[in-house]
Amino acid sequence: MRTEIATLGEFGLIDHLTKGIQPMHASTQKGIGDDAAVLSYPTNKQVLVTTDLLLEGVHFDLVYTPLKHLGYKAAVVNFSDIYAMNGTPKQITVSLGVSKRFSVEDMEQLYAGIRLACEDYEVDIVGGDTTSSLTGLTISITCIGEAGKDKVVYRNGAQETDLICVSGNLGAAYMGLQLLEREKAVLKGSDKDVQPDFAGKEYILERQLKPEARKDIIEKLAEAGIQPTAMMDISDGLSSELMHICKQSNKGCRIYEEHLPIDYQTAAMAEEFNMNLTTCALNGGEDYELVFTVPLSCHEKIQDISDIRLIGHITNPELGCALITRDGQEFELKAQGWNPLK
Amino acid sequence: MRTEIATLGEFGLIDHLTKGIQPMHASTQKGIGDDAAVLSYPTNKQVLVTTDLLLEGVHFDLVYTPLKHLGYKAAVVNFSDIYAMNGTPKQITVSLGVSKRFSVEDMEQLYAGIRLACEDYEVDIVGGDTTSSLTGLTISITCIGEAGKDKVVYRNGAQETDLICVSGNLGAAYMGLQLLEREKAVLKGSDKDVQPDFAGKEYILERQLKPEARKDIIEKLAEAGIQPTAMMDISDGLSSELMHICKQSNKGCRIYEEHLPIDYQTAAMAEEFNMNLTTCALNGGEDYELVFTVPLSCHEKIQDISDIRLIGHITNPELGCALITRDGQEFELKAQGWNPLK
Repeated sequence: MRTEIATLGEFGLIDHLTKGIQPMHASTQKGIGDDAAVLSYPTNKQVLVTTDLLLEGVHFDLVYTPLKHLGYKAAVVNFSDIYAMNGTPKQITVSLGVSKRFSVEDMEQLYAGIRLACEDYEVDIVGGDTTSSLTGLTISITCIGEAGKDKVVYRNGAQETDLICVSGNLGAAYMGLQLLEREKAVLKGSDKDVQPDFAGKEYILERQLKPEARKDIIEKLAEAGIQPTAMMDISDGLSSELMHICKQSNKGCRIYEEHLPIDYQTAAMAEEFNMNLTTCALNGGEDYELVFTVPLSCHEKIQDISDIRLIGHITNPELGCALITRDGQEFELKAQGWNPLK
Repeated sequence: MRTEIATLGEFGLIDHLTKGIQPMHASTQKGIGDDAAVLSYPTNKQVLVTTDLLLEGVHFDLVYTPLKHLGYKAAVVNFSDIYAMNGTPKQITVSLGVSKRFSVEDMEQLYAGIRLACEDYEVDIVGGDTTSSLTGLTISITCIGEAGKDKVVYRNGAQETDLICVSGNLGAAYMGLQLLEREKAVLKGSDKDVQPDFAGKEYILERQLKPEARKDIIEKLAEAGIQPTAMMDISDGLSSELMHICKQSNKGCRIYEEHLPIDYQTAAMAEEFNMNLTTCALNGGEDYELVFTVPLSCHEKIQDISDIRLIGHITNPELGCALITRDGQEFELKAQGWNPLK
């Protein structure tokens, strides 16, 4: 079934997609339906704001990305930015630019993904904008969150001798993308009935198509009484993010190849593609894991938390940022140093 | 001079465009440069959030829109939404999708317009996102503002016998657009050296290309101690906005053709184009004036404020929404009823 968006019009489409949305947070005084959303934050909280613009053909490929997954991911990557400040996402606005190629049912799928993410992470949809587009799909999401007054963690607080930690594992989303791109190329030149065989590769596909934000890590750190000195989420690759932290903190760092957390499927896929696994882990991007620094004194406490790995330490700025390989060589970190990723 | 954006890269471009931006508000704790902006609002304020997505070819035509004006307008239309809640804009985030057609100098122009608007209206740029685009220019701006706890004005508060007021005049931006479109069509078929003659039409062009938000009206109402019962800014045309207010307030309305405020240049242009002036004023759109309702008891106070016109009153819902023409006939209001505006 295909219903043309023109049959509903802009206001009709917004009404249709946002039907039944009920704010769950006390801080959401007024959601969708006026010139602006009205929020009310207690005075002991800081308000956090982040925004992401996703364009078809640049950030996503609808050949292999289901619209519901895309909606979920578009919301989650914004939540991830709020967690990376040691905050909690509370509200989002959703702006969509939609060409005639898309039907009302397509938009229902996209919105279903956004709404699912909002339910899972307890976030209110409070507004947005929907407009026609001449070319493809545009998604712009802004997320508003909160953090305790002295709890916000910036990029610039890393201190010498701090430990560098990452959550989860790295490079999986990037290998998932490589797999999808390969299957797309294969299917293009073949009979349409050929089904790609993704058996045993579900994990890396899920990391690419339906990533999660590390709410659990933020909660565990709070429970353990650990306040990171600096933190970012890993969207452009570990190297790039670590270099931001070091630059803004005016420090250097050493990380160890042998400590980089990598999943088995990521490693197997890299081998199949004949790619350097460490390069994938350092520069792959779209991990949406957290990289953060904690004082040396937190060493034991951090090791008690599952799914966090110590990968190195912060140094004085003169030492620069480097990776120590398994055989003891030192390589300077480069942001997006690997050209094919550009 | 033309510098390719690729020579700077994404981070380089953001650094370049946002160089020297200094937050002016105490509520801006941390602006550009982290995963999220950090804001701090006092407990007696509500936080307002609004967002707008502008796409090239749909919302603007770069054939006749200077990039600096476009930047200014993109920011101002968001401020207008915050004023329409009886609030004050304080921060914006700016997301840009830019194709290879655009140079660093183009983006400097666009950003210069955004920064000028922010200076004029005292708003901090606190973040955003810049990405490449396959097709044209995409601008997504989110504005955060504040309003006193009991000062927020919604769309749903209009009461029977309330007076309906509008600021400024209507239809000018729409006639400016018609003029620009005509000149574009003329120039297309002619020698490129022909310069369009815009003498005597500066006002309607400015209303289209460099609109202002009615900060002054919000301030004057506050000074006079008047709290509107309902308010919107006029972006889609007076008819459409009034119908939103009446629907959400569960009321009807009567407005009078003879009281609609229209500038001389708008009237002259409508005559030249052989268009119905009242239709232009009701449905033209992009006026960014305010339409609001006040209790009947404010009648005298409102008349003392310059640049506000009483155009009608709120009725019970059974009477519907109608325009009374100069000869006493009643016409039901229609949102975007005039097809060429679609």
